[in-house]
Amino acid sequence: MSELKGACIVGQSGGPTSVINSSLYGVINTALHNPSITKVYGAANGIKGVLGDKLYDMGEEDPAELAKLTSTPSSALGSCRYKMKDPDVDDTDYKKILEIFKKYDVRYFFYNGGNDSMDTCNKISKYMQKVGYECRVMGVPKTIDNDLFGTDHCPGFASAAKYIATSCMEVFLDAHVYDTGEICVIEIMGRNAGWLTAASALASAKGYGPDLIYLPEVAFNMDKFLDDVDKIYKKTGYCMIAVSEGICYEDGTLVSEAQASASDGFGHAQLGGLASRLADAVKEKTGAKVRGIELSLLQRCGAHLASKTDIDESYASGEAAVNNAVAGITDKMVGFKCDRTNGYKCEIQLLDLSDVANTEKKVPREWINEEGNGINQQFIDYALPLIQGEPDFSREDSLPRFAKLKKVLAK
Amino acid sequence: MSELKGACIVGQSGGPTSVINSSLYGVINTALHNPSITKVYGAANGIKGVLGDKLYDMGEEDPAELAKLTSTPSSALGSCRYKMKDPDVDDTDYKKILEIFKKYDVRYFFYNGGNDSMDTCNKISKYMQKVGYECRVMGVPKTIDNDLFGTDHCPGFASAAKYIATSCMEVFLDAHVYDTGEICVIEIMGRNAGWLTAASALASAKGYGPDLIYLPEVAFNMDKFLDDVDKIYKKTGYCMIAVSEGICYEDGTLVSEAQASASDGFGHAQLGGLASRLADAVKEKTGAKVRGIELSLLQRCGAHLASKTDIDESYASGEAAVNNAVAGITDKMVGFKCDRTNGYKCEIQLLDLSDVANTEKKVPREWINEEGNGINQQFIDYALPLIQGEPDFSREDSLPRFAKLKKVLAK
Repeated sequence: MSELKGACIVGQSGGPTSVINSSLYGVINTALHNPSITKVYGAANGIKGVLGDKLYDMGEEDPAELAKLTSTPSSALGSCRYKMKDPDVDDTDYKKILEIFKKYDVRYFFYNGGNDSMDTCNKISKYMQKVGYECRVMGVPKTIDNDLFGTDHCPGFASAAKYIATSCMEVFLDAHVYDTGEICVIEIMGRNAGWLTAASALASAKGYGPDLIYLPEVAFNMDKFLDDVDKIYKKTGYCMIAVSEGICYEDGTLVSEAQASASDGFGHAQLGGLASRLADAVKEKTGAKVRGIELSLLQRCGAHLASKTDIDESYASGEAAVNNAVAGITDKMVGFKCDRTNGYKCEIQLLDLSDVANTEKKVPREWINEEGNGINQQFIDYALPLIQGEPDFSREDSLPRFAKLKKVLAK
Repeated sequence: MSELKGACIVGQSGGPTSVINSSLYGVINTALHNPSITKVYGAANGIKGVLGDKLYDMGEEDPAELAKLTSTPSSALGSCRYKMKDPDVDDTDYKKILEIFKKYDVRYFFYNGGNDSMDTCNKISKYMQKVGYECRVMGVPKTIDNDLFGTDHCPGFASAAKYIATSCMEVFLDAHVYDTGEICVIEIMGRNAGWLTAASALASAKGYGPDLIYLPEVAFNMDKFLDDVDKIYKKTGYCMIAVSEGICYEDGTLVSEAQASASDGFGHAQLGGLASRLADAVKEKTGAKVRGIELSLLQRCGAHLASKTDIDESYASGEAAVNNAVAGITDKMVGFKCDRTNGYKCEIQLLDLSDVANTEKKVPREWINEEGNGINQQFIDYALPLIQGEPDFSREDSLPRFAKLKKVLAK
């Protein structure tokens, strides 16, 4: 493969994570030092920044500030949720992207996101091939949901998992402080895949975690749930429960959106999140003091509790995207292949964008207990190595010191 | 004052904090090494453990585990919410306490808690004096609410404040990631005093915090609130709001409990927490994407984000309680007197229990802006020194390693 000289664009897309900026830094830092790459542009708000000709010249940034991206959560370039149309139906966006690529002599495109972003990557790459414009396209994975196909795990998952496990441990102590008993329902992100909710089992494995864990992978049954809780509460005086926001009834209805009815344990109309709905149902059943807690955005932006392993792997995935693209590879997403037999080893592997684009990876059924209300050891063995290591966190006045980018617009 | 030899009891009461166990460790570690104190007992669940003769022999604990109390949130001995009766009306409890004190030759009583706990201390002390049983009683303060009278600040406040400020900064980045705008309402603890909610201003001072902050110290006006938010959202496309759970309307009704009515911005019946109620009202007014986040228990048990200053001061308050009691002092609560003119200096001062017992300290009106929707620099200058320093946090597998106490019952 001959050398391809030109500029690169990097963009971020979808829901942010604690470490997506580590991947970004991996791309930028590697690209800035690679002689084949003439300019490094950051797209404002993902593909929308390309479409709107809003590109930042990353070479103008202070290297010390760029380095702080590893302890800056959220997407430093801004993100978007933009679904690309099928180019055979409407190629307006693709023509615009081509125009921008030509304008800035862009020969490398790195896109940092989840399933939808890999779909975007794939469509852009196929279009450029069709019109004969040489541009190497690489997907850099991120998602706290950990649901990308083909890779052992996704950058962003481990840090969110560590936040969840740590918070569950701390809340466990708080929720056991009175001798008068207490039940606590914790709602965790994950619409279709239960990886994050399963991470609460890391707290249980340490002795300070949920007694019951419900993932979207198993159909939810309200009567069974209330019986499960009641049994533990009657026996111990306490019960801690972790639920995924995406749990559904057998018929596919989200528990969080189901209509109130007497039969499902909700005696009266309910608004608010799943945690408070379930807390009310549990209170009605047990009469206990019940608290519902939603970890909300906190779990995906808690960079102060990030996993060093996750930060390093995120950086490595950005770095690998650049190095492989320069070496001639295109149309791939960077993934991880891991070996846990003798300690933990993680290697980069490249996956076809078209395979990754629209497949979701769920928690294997055999990693969930038979009753569907707990997590088996296989998950602990899988997840524990991923959360290891403390970040070298940038602080000022004992508060986070985030990267401050100048964001100089490209000319 | 002659030497008083005998056992001591230490108990914990009220809502736990991230650092109340540092105070506990200050008492236990100092008492175990003081020759005047013959035995160190920990009361299970505060005064209930004394009443129920459930005392742990702290001398049986492994010193290395006791040292881990400084990174263990919640109340390691268990807590209670037990209001002591007036002894002139019903002295049953006091007689029982006297019996236990005599049984174990208890001459020192240390009680670790907030306003109510200081009231308990005070009543027990006065009763013991009345019946002529010599026992020195000292209050060791704690409360995330920071509302204890007479002391510059309370152990537990700073760590919760740091958690709140850090979380607000992280959420700020997350809530500004899309170019499509977003409004975020964060609900923070504090029923009558707004100290904790004010702590979100530390995030604003760093450039990543709430635009609007509402404390219980100022009467809440829904129309004014919605206008405030709308103005900022229209101008910037974003708005971040911090509210105290205890905000009230002019007539004293809690906003979180007010009946739904069209005039107060709630068009329809609402359940769930204040954050989601306000989020709904804001959504109706602005049409924006709005998210309500309740920091819930997380803010008072997030020991991984504790302030080292807070940990050290908490330990020092426990230590001072013991040393002063042995030196002959009784009927006092340990407080802090601080000087911020040339750096930060904090000294122990002793306060009369009877003064502390039933007074609440609120945020001074002049520390809140005139409009009642923001915090002035005086608060930043006050709070910033308190949150300084990172804890030497005990970990195992990159998760918290809490103190494991044997809790051997006293014979």
